[in-house]
Amino acid sequence: MARPSPVLALTSGEPAGVGPDITLAAWLLRDARALPPFFVTGDAGLLRRRAAQLGLAVPVRECTPEQARALFPDALPVVNAGPTATADPGKPDASSAAAACAAIDSAVALVKAGRASAVVTNPISKAVLYADGFGFPGHTEYLAHLAGLPAPRPVMMIWSPELAVVPTTIHVPLAEVPRLFTHALLVETAQITARDLRLRFGIAAPRLAICGLNPHAGEDGMLGCEDEDVTRPAVETLRQQGIDARGPLPADTLFHAAARATYDAAIGAYHDQVLAPAKALAFDRAVNVTLGLPFVRTSPDHGTAFGLAGTGRADPSSLIEALLLARRLAERDAANAREPSVRDHLALDGQPG
Amino acid sequence: MARPSPVLALTSGEPAGVGPDITLAAWLLRDARALPPFFVTGDAGLLRRRAAQLGLAVPVRECTPEQARALFPDALPVVNAGPTATADPGKPDASSAAAACAAIDSAVALVKAGRASAVVTNPISKAVLYADGFGFPGHTEYLAHLAGLPAPRPVMMIWSPELAVVPTTIHVPLAEVPRLFTHALLVETAQITARDLRLRFGIAAPRLAICGLNPHAGEDGMLGCEDEDVTRPAVETLRQQGIDARGPLPADTLFHAAARATYDAAIGAYHDQVLAPAKALAFDRAVNVTLGLPFVRTSPDHGTAFGLAGTGRADPSSLIEALLLARRLAERDAANAREPSVRDHLALDGQPG
Repeated sequence: MARPSPVLALTSGEPAGVGPDITLAAWLLRDARALPPFFVTGDAGLLRRRAAQLGLAVPVRECTPEQARALFPDALPVVNAGPTATADPGKPDASSAAAACAAIDSAVALVKAGRASAVVTNPISKAVLYADGFGFPGHTEYLAHLAGLPAPRPVMMIWSPELAVVPTTIHVPLAEVPRLFTHALLVETAQITARDLRLRFGIAAPRLAICGLNPHAGEDGMLGCEDEDVTRPAVETLRQQGIDARGPLPADTLFHAAARATYDAAIGAYHDQVLAPAKALAFDRAVNVTLGLPFVRTSPDHGTAFGLAGTGRADPSSLIEALLLARRLAERDAANAREPSVRDHLALDGQPG
Repeated sequence: MARPSPVLALTSGEPAGVGPDITLAAWLLRDARALPPFFVTGDAGLLRRRAAQLGLAVPVRECTPEQARALFPDALPVVNAGPTATADPGKPDASSAAAACAAIDSAVALVKAGRASAVVTNPISKAVLYADGFGFPGHTEYLAHLAGLPAPRPVMMIWSPELAVVPTTIHVPLAEVPRLFTHALLVETAQITARDLRLRFGIAAPRLAICGLNPHAGEDGMLGCEDEDVTRPAVETLRQQGIDARGPLPADTLFHAAARATYDAAIGAYHDQVLAPAKALAFDRAVNVTLGLPFVRTSPDHGTAFGLAGTGRADPSSLIEALLLARRLAERDAANAREPSVRDHLALDGQPG
């Protein structure tokens, strides 16, 4: 008899943010949205308190990861991550950083041990973590650290049913983008994207649209040299490696429906170039997916929204999409792991499989 | 008895491009789309030839601007602009540049003389014009030159029913944007936008959303200094002038429906930041509007599309939206001109009215 497949591990996130709110709201929609079973890593008391504050009838049950699937239809399963979270909605306190980190640590440890199928993360507050001495630029880098050696190169994708985009540079000043946008970075970003699209999204021959850095992709060098010096050679390198990449393409004409039908992911040079159109098209349903990790990780594409925590107005749509996408990717990951010819490609080595 | 109001002047554009094709297609949809009457400035022979090539039953009639309204229901009126255009579809020839320029000259002269109510321009080819010695960066600058003194500062808006955006810098390398994005340029761009929204779009108190230049609008200076040094002070200046400006705002969260409902136009720092989301939302219906000119000018938001000319596959949607918007703006302009308290503001002087 086959063992039941592991369920998703959902971190509780910043205790004072909307993570607990949208987690409770998503669980209430488990049947309506046909959600995969999940358990929360964190403090059951926090979730019980938030449910009471919101007037939501959500039974919260502490359990082991293995008990979660059976409990899920009738209660929100919580795997105790250690620290107690005492923060009130909108008011992070001294317990916040430790609780947020422990929830991440627990989820990653469980997925590495095969006791969870994927990590879905609720929003954390960088300001709260920095004040506590957190030594990583953000959530994604911390997850990469926990993933262990060989150190993976995480790549951020914003995914929605309408559009998947990957910025090559992310949280850097615009003035630094032309210097940071290198052949090596663009090629590696596209390689990791293509590999994850193939292995986890199940797209046999992913089609990548590579944006030019300059307006109109530089108009043959008339509007900046980077697209001739960096983007075009990088696309050529990718094509020589058998990756179906096209570019440099003008970003402004790349995101209407007819254009989107020609590729599986668009690689942008920088943050706003691809995130602005992606969120214009699918703000509530956009999911942040980390590619290049040895496990599946998705996240709602919004922050802690302290002002909405505890109000009942936090929208669980993005978390719901993150849970649905995590199941899809985790199922493919599990199938890959049973397939030796594919499994070798999953030992992530920074090269396309 | 009131004289009939002047009709729209539509330039024929690059003869080898899709301008003639979409002009013929739009005229055929004049009843279905309730189009305002317009005449073409250009060469009637070119339009007759293209109609025959496309198998379209469009009677083409040469006329004066004053005859155009009565003719429009039964024929496509053409006001002869001078040069004969001999180019075949997709193949600009030695007659192209002169024909394209003459059509623009004619339309502007007629609108300045009160014989046309607005200028709508079909796409021209910069490469063709440059090869002919054209001395202007583009269409818009040429129109500003023809508008005469005092030299107006034209501002490009991409407008659709969903979203209106204005980039502060436009066709420049991305690496030059941080240097070119100054307090003076942003303030002037926003002033001209607010004035045209008020006087021509009829929005009593226009709301402007001002994007930060950096991702997340710089996160209080953590991701670049420009939004604290330039954007925030510029917004403050605008507010002191009574303009309802907000910012710096993160561009990636500014273009979903709920955000769009909070402003009338978004001012971006650079091209792709606002044109990528604008065209993602309304690619076929986006209209290029030139603000800051002493007359109304709109244009379809696409190029000559040489590969589509003569094929019957060119989509007239954007031209149709440009004609509809030109009528709306021209009617407001005419009403303003009859109103002395408003008329004075139309003597464009680089300051908000």
